Amino acid sequence: MAPDSKRNDYNQSSQNALLPDLPKGPLCMYRAKSSFNWKELLLLLDGEDMIIFKKRIFSAFENDPLFAHHPGEELPIEKYRELNFLRCKRLFEYDFLNIQEMIKNPLKIFMLINCLGMYDWSLSAKYFLNTYVFASTIQNSGSQRHMHFIQKTLNMEIFGCFALTEVSHGSNTKAIRTTAQYDPTTQEFIINSPDFEASKFWIGNMGKNATHAVVYAQLYTPGGQCHGLHSFVVQIRDPKTLLPMPGIMVGDIGKKLGQNGLDNGDVRQRFVASLFSLSPARVSVIGMSVVNLKLALSIAIRFSATRRQFGPSDGDEIPGLEYQMQQWRLIPYLAAAYALDHFAKTLFEDMTEFLKGFLQNDNNIIQAELGYEIHALASAGKPLASWTAQQGAQECQEACGGHGYLAMNRLGDIRNDNDPNCTYEGDNNVLLQQTSNYLLRYIKNRHQDKTRIKSPLESVNFLEDFEDILGQKFMISRVEDCMDSSVSLAAYKWLVCYLLQESHQKLNQERKSGSGDFEARNNCQAYYCHSLALVFIEHTVLQRYHDYTHQSSIPAPLQPVLKRLSALYGLWSLSQHLGVLYQGGYFSGEQAGKVIKNAILDLCAKLKDDAVALVDVIAPPDFILNSPIGRANGELYKNLWTTVLQGKNVLERASWWPEFSAYKPTIGSWKSKL
Amino acid sequence: MAPDSKRNDYNQSSQNALLPDLPKGPLCMYRAKSSFNWKELLLLLDGEDMIIFKKRIFSAFENDPLFAHHPGEELPIEKYRELNFLRCKRLFEYDFLNIQEMIKNPLKIFMLINCLGMYDWSLSAKYFLNTYVFASTIQNSGSQRHMHFIQKTLNMEIFGCFALTEVSHGSNTKAIRTTAQYDPTTQEFIINSPDFEASKFWIGNMGKNATHAVVYAQLYTPGGQCHGLHSFVVQIRDPKTLLPMPGIMVGDIGKKLGQNGLDNGDVRQRFVASLFSLSPARVSVIGMSVVNLKLALSIAIRFSATRRQFGPSDGDEIPGLEYQMQQWRLIPYLAAAYALDHFAKTLFEDMTEFLKGFLQNDNNIIQAELGYEIHALASAGKPLASWTAQQGAQECQEACGGHGYLAMNRLGDIRNDNDPNCTYEGDNNVLLQQTSNYLLRYIKNRHQDKTRIKSPLESVNFLEDFEDILGQKFMISRVEDCMDSSVSLAAYKWLVCYLLQESHQKLNQERKSGSGDFEARNNCQAYYCHSLALVFIEHTVLQRYHDYTHQSSIPAPLQPVLKRLSALYGLWSLSQHLGVLYQGGYFSGEQAGKVIKNAILDLCAKLKDDAVALVDVIAPPDFILNSPIGRANGELYKNLWTTVLQGKNVLERASWWPEFSAYKPTIGSWKSKL
Repeated sequence: MAPDSKRNDYNQSSQNALLPDLPKGPLCMYRAKSSFNWKELLLLLDGEDMIIFKKRIFSAFENDPLFAHHPGEELPIEKYRELNFLRCKRLFEYDFLNIQEMIKNPLKIFMLINCLGMYDWSLSAKYFLNTYVFASTIQNSGSQRHMHFIQKTLNMEIFGCFALTEVSHGSNTKAIRTTAQYDPTTQEFIINSPDFEASKFWIGNMGKNATHAVVYAQLYTPGGQCHGLHSFVVQIRDPKTLLPMPGIMVGDIGKKLGQNGLDNGDVRQRFVASLFSLSPARVSVIGMSVVNLKLALSIAIRFSATRRQFGPSDGDEIPGLEYQMQQWRLIPYLAAAYALDHFAKTLFEDMTEFLKGFLQNDNNIIQAELGYEIHALASAGKPLASWTAQQGAQECQEACGGHGYLAMNRLGDIRNDNDPNCTYEGDNNVLLQQTSNYLLRYIKNRHQDKTRIKSPLESVNFLEDFEDILGQKFMISRVEDCMDSSVSLAAYKWLVCYLLQESHQKLNQERKSGSGDFEARNNCQAYYCHSLALVFIEHTVLQRYHDYTHQSSIPAPLQPVLKRLSALYGLWSLSQHLGVLYQGGYFSGEQAGKVIKNAILDLCAKLKDDAVALVDVIAPPDFILNSPIGRANGELYKNLWTTVLQGKNVLERASWWPEFSAYKPTIGSWKSKL
Repeated sequence: MAPDSKRNDYNQSSQNALLPDLPKGPLCMYRAKSSFNWKELLLLLDGEDMIIFKKRIFSAFENDPLFAHHPGEELPIEKYRELNFLRCKRLFEYDFLNIQEMIKNPLKIFMLINCLGMYDWSLSAKYFLNTYVFASTIQNSGSQRHMHFIQKTLNMEIFGCFALTEVSHGSNTKAIRTTAQYDPTTQEFIINSPDFEASKFWIGNMGKNATHAVVYAQLYTPGGQCHGLHSFVVQIRDPKTLLPMPGIMVGDIGKKLGQNGLDNGDVRQRFVASLFSLSPARVSVIGMSVVNLKLALSIAIRFSATRRQFGPSDGDEIPGLEYQMQQWRLIPYLAAAYALDHFAKTLFEDMTEFLKGFLQNDNNIIQAELGYEIHALASAGKPLASWTAQQGAQECQEACGGHGYLAMNRLGDIRNDNDPNCTYEGDNNVLLQQTSNYLLRYIKNRHQDKTRIKSPLESVNFLEDFEDILGQKFMISRVEDCMDSSVSLAAYKWLVCYLLQESHQKLNQERKSGSGDFEARNNCQAYYCHSLALVFIEHTVLQRYHDYTHQSSIPAPLQPVLKRLSALYGLWSLSQHLGVLYQGGYFSGEQAGKVIKNAILDLCAKLKDDAVALVDVIAPPDFILNSPIGRANGELYKNLWTTVLQGKNVLERASWWPEFSAYKPTIGSWKSKL
């Protein structure tokens, strides 16, 4: 036996110990046809250490009765909240990630958020709003005398929340109306939300649970001078009783479309406290959105691979995944999930580096520029990821027909839980303006001082070739020449430059016609700045995924499938902009549009046999995925039947049967009341 | 006083009695700016008789405690089902629409479905599946000896459901596996669903309530010959006890994403019965989707007109509706709601005419052609309307930010209740093939026998000028020349012809390359037949709305706003196809795309001050709309605050507080179990 094959055997067996084979069943047909080994790809993407970390969390949940699912049982919200709190408390007992591990590999925070979310976003939100958002805000903005709050948070002596948004103000934080009046005689701050409109609203954990809040308020000093928004730690409940503190009115805002395990609160306060801070979470939302997309696709693609409907002849039905339409509806989202996942992880790492510099007081210009760039990438990355997940989850639900509409299959919860990703941490449409402003500044500076365009993460460096790029044309006429993501990458570079130029000109034109800055910017959003920010971020996501998939270090057997995903993501995203590509002259002639569309269909067909294996890489274990039609054994109907029968009172007669059987209506007897 | 002004005074006062003024409040600012009188428009669209009919239903609900809302209260599904049944029974007592009225004005059926749906789609579905779908199936397909079922249904002696779909087969009805074996010795049919996969699934009313079902099964005669799908009336429960009949296993399939007041059932039968029938409902789904779009827009536009955020200077915030982005996100959907509403009503009337002919045994060729055409229009109209409602409801929810995510504001329910419109009565993507097949047949016939292209409803007549249309070009370069829907109508005619030609060629090419018919058709869906069916139906909807809004009988004060809605709907729909318009050469040069986009923004800005009044026309009364942020008084925050405080236990301490206060976790204590 050659030494190499011996090593392969060894690798194989250690791989199987880490990643056991998936159960046999109807999905094997597709698994056998896949071009690559799903275990090899998973090891490449996550690495052994991270796989073990994830397994530890997932197995703990599966083995712990507190985390058991209750199929068919209706959980009243109060009960769900209690269960969610108990599970959250258990997380303190599991202590999956201690500070040392976290510092060693910060990506584990990202993974932990997402693993908890794959199980239940209410749990993930409850835990992280307290343990990370509340505690890290104090860590980053507090002074020494506030640090005791952190230890108390980590011990669950207190429970925290982050209170910025008010009933009448979300995106416009400057207009927040809660005030903090400094009283020099007592050296205290009097915090006051004057009315319902100014009360803090939507604050996760505040509804029923939090004892302390980081509250944002307009700071006033004696004499009435306003110093703008500052943050204060306010005790809102007594930890011994969970009753509100004097002067505080706090309650739950009611049922939401999703994430109902989390208690969102509304508080009105007139209270004394202190402290100031700030914190970002947008980058995490990108990752959370990608998780939702992965969950939805895992369910819909396994369903499509096992659900048979119609066929070339009677009685010979074929799986949905064999249909061009179903491939076209789902496989581009699968490519998007892979590309966006890579973007989410790498941006998280960039942010970690930035925060490291920040904590080391690294105040140089590059550090500041890095901050701006991450802000611009996150401000457009969140809209792109959350909308892609929203639309993908919707498509997945519809692609499963009636079975997608059954609550037990979880596609509804995934969509409902993803919704807030589009609006919180900055509304998507408002955030996109941050990114377009960032880009417009480069163009303005260039016109003024001819400095070279570059940024620490290099996302804008190609703008240096602005004029050259605008002069380029799409020259490809054959589908086979579109099989690499470099094609769409070049088109995206042109698109960004074109929309940047158009937005810049439109803005100048608006200003010349007498609009003030506020009005001018508002009138340049639709079709201009809004589109600019989106094509820029699509370009960045694609560029990063293109670079990754073209690294020579990618094992040869994995290269074809990854490059196809990159090519498909690029072309499919690009296909939303065909109108602009033609309008600006990058495309011309009938062939350009056709070749893009045909290439998309071709790539979908090529990836069709890999789709199930690609889902095996990203799907959590069955217990976590928790969807009968999405189970790894592919026994669609058996899984469904079992779960239907577990429903409460499924075969029982309705309790109200005498209302039908004994008390018959008299037709028209209430007509006189009309 | 001139006689005319006297009549006006009289009209004014009778108008006010029928349509009282809306409550004063923050929305008055926009109402005062509107270009037309909302009462005049509502009278034009609905007519006095229909307004009175709707008012009768809405007032009955508002005054009847059985229909009271329970804000903040969590209704367990079993309780919700009971309430929904009791409300359904009350409908028999109200008897809003008797047979004579129905025959006199069949559109009242359409209105009744929709009025019930505005209140609650579960109620609408429960009532109509029994009273109309079940009863009319028997009416249309039964013989004299079945007619006693109808009387019993109308008296609620029995309760019916329509059982076609099986667990493993929805769209492919030919593959239904339930069998009906005729036994000549007893002259009975033995109906058998052999396993779970063949059991009838998703059947509304079957879960807990129905006593009788129209069951579709493959008819077998002695000797094993199959005669295809036939329908049979099967008694599934004893009306005296609501217990299943011997040989029947029947139960509830579980919680859905929406419409949980309706019990959907799963039944496996081995039973003896008889009867055959068939029925359509797709046209109704178009109307139901439009209702959802109207409800969502009523909420989001009133919210946007009262929610202030940011402004040109600090402390001077402006309503969301003043922002170009918010206008661009919402107002085109408002135009779509008006255009699609007109389409839904007129197609319903066409169908009524067709059914009249059918019942009169009017079996001539024109009647058959009319049947095909209605089928083609409904098969693409349902996808267009349900997807527009889906996307519109999503946009409305996001446009209301966090407040859109609060369950009490109803945007979640609207979206969840609309979802099945995309998949039932034929999955949207499958249905679109019916329409493209219909269109392709015309092209094929024309190539073969050069017959003149025309259809009873004239939706395809323009194809007669196929070659001429394909030779046309878009010649407009100024926004002011795009203000009439004739511009987009001409572009749509070109689009339909282009995609028809492309689809025809692609299909031939696939066939030439050796694909069988099944495979060839499948490979022509994405970008070809699928797009063809959609542009065709968009053209039809626009053509009908264009014709309507350009009638000289429309009162002069209403003409400008209606024509703008038509123009905006046309351009906005068209803007999804800019890529194809350029690709095929109808558009060329940078100006074409720009002029369309600028015209859309211009029309949005022009309609902005009419948006609230346009919503006043389509919104049901506050009690029915049931959304604090969507109330007609526009007191956004007061309405919200009141409803938040009505929530159950909103200010109460959580029952599980000792779990936090007394039982603290020991950090890491469960680590050993990992």
